[in-house]
Amino acid sequence: MEGFNFSTEVVVRFAETDAQGIAHHASFVVWLEVARVAYLAEHAGGYLSIQAQGVEALTTGVQLTYRRAAYFDDRLCVWTRCVDLRGARFRYEYVLDRDGEAVAEGSTSHATVDARTRRPTRAPAWFVEAVAKAEA
Amino acid sequence: MEGFNFSTEVVVRFAETDAQGIAHHASFVVWLEVARVAYLAEHAGGYLSIQAQGVEALTTGVQLTYRRAAYFDDRLCVWTRCVDLRGARFRYEYVLDRDGEAVAEGSTSHATVDARTRRPTRAPAWFVEAVAKAEA
Amino acid sequence: MEGFNFSTEVVVRFAETDAQGIAHHASFVVWLEVARVAYLAEHAGGYLSIQAQGVEALTTGVQLTYRRAAYFDDRLCVWTRCVDLRGARFRYEYVLDRDGEAVAEGSTSHATVDARTRRPTRAPAWFVEAVAKAEA
Amino acid sequence: MEGFNFSTEVVVRFAETDAQGIAHHASFVVWLEVARVAYLAEHAGGYLSIQAQGVEALTTGVQLTYRRAAYFDDRLCVWTRCVDLRGARFRYEYVLDRDGEAVAEGSTSHATVDARTRRPTRAPAWFVEAVAKAEA
Repeated sequence: MEGFNFSTEVVVRFAETDAQGIAHHASFVVWLEVARVAYLAEHAGGYLSIQAQGVEALTTGVQLTYRRAAYFDDRLCVWTRCVDLRGARFRYEYVLDRDGEAVAEGSTSHATVDARTRRPTRAPAWFVEAVAKAEA
Repeated sequence: MEGFNFSTEVVVRFAETDAQGIAHHASFVVWLEVARVAYLAEHAGGYLSIQAQGVEALTTGVQLTYRRAAYFDDRLCVWTRCVDLRGARFRYEYVLDRDGEAVAEGSTSHATVDARTRRPTRAPAWFVEAVAKAEA
Repeated sequence: MEGFNFSTEVVVRFAETDAQGIAHHASFVVWLEVARVAYLAEHAGGYLSIQAQGVEALTTGVQLTYRRAAYFDDRLCVWTRCVDLRGARFRYEYVLDRDGEAVAEGSTSHATVDARTRRPTRAPAWFVEAVAKAEA
Repeated sequence: MEGFNFSTEVVVRFAETDAQGIAHHASFVVWLEVARVAYLAEHAGGYLSIQAQGVEALTTGVQLTYRRAAYFDDRLCVWTRCVDLRGARFRYEYVLDRDGEAVAEGSTSHATVDARTRRPTRAPAWFVEAVAKAEA
């Protein structure tokens, strides 16, 4: 996908469908998180290594636009990039496609906080560098 | 809440929390839906009565901004209003508060489709009227 | 319900349904937890008051038999009783009905552990007494 | 795992954890379903091919025993076998392990029904054969 260096795959679980016969729209929010976790594993030693530094990343916003329904057992590609990293704040942008067909797109906003005090704290330098390298 | 005529209550379930010790951000998306269902039950005979007319309401977008963490057993008030109803499209806006303190706010976008063909179809007149009356 | 002194109500959420058009079987496991939380709120000062004593209750087993499908917006009555409380172990038994018609029945097993060490610790005396009183 | 010919892998999602810092016990029920779907994909043309024959498989029971907590990002192996296939009924048995250490074990019961009438109907012969071959 133009503008994205990273993607991960999710397969729609039956439990993620609803009585409209499609993947429930809240399931996509979970998939974005699965994609962030995969992104961090690939580029920044994993989420656990961020936590190990006493830093938690909170989700402060989520936005999704649904273009087409997704169905049970669909294999979706979640294109993911980390953008706008400044101080204690950063965003991810996503495009979900199925065989090249856009299914949804979205973004999430995050803030890094000190795990103990829950106060905003700058994202660790190594994380900033890892993201810069991943998005280069 | 100023500008809202309707609210419903949700209590954070333990299953809705995550390992950060807070309500998972995807849980809020489900609560918005619970609030829409309650709104429709109050004002438009319930979602099942819309389906009974051969109409499905799809969710085409969701947007949430998280202000404060919610915790297990928190009692949240979900203020809900239906806006921008035009043809086959409408939106809901929400504010979630806990004892008057803003926890999150958001909106969802929807489209009414024919249940069989899945093609856009105008929201039923009685639904438009019910919403107009509810939001008067 | 014969043999039960306590019940709570859950309404099937749309997000809890699946593409078979019924409530997904994993949703019931969450409802049992909702019922336990309501039971504890009624009889033992709430789950948070147990945690406040440095005790966590782990779930060590779950068993469910599904008799009939449940559907979106169904109002289910979850009959709940706490049984077999001995030392650090206890069980709950449940019957879920809809307008008097059995939908499912089940049980869960639990162990109380010290919140810090995660080692088994006897259920607090006041909890044992509260349950005895509730089930008298 | 002794007695099992098939396994699939799940990685614990952050959304699947709870405020006890562990994977929520209801998440396991979803993983068993993920494993059944993978089993059917491997051995019987996938669940969709069963549905294509006008047959639905309902879940009539679930039983889980939790041995150890599972944590965010844990990679679990779900050993799965299909047993006791007779007429319209069959069961699955499961063992979940993490690096060879037992985390949970369980079983689910199922009934095949005609998708339209929802009445019990024998499992298709090709399904019975596929299972027999898989479990040989």
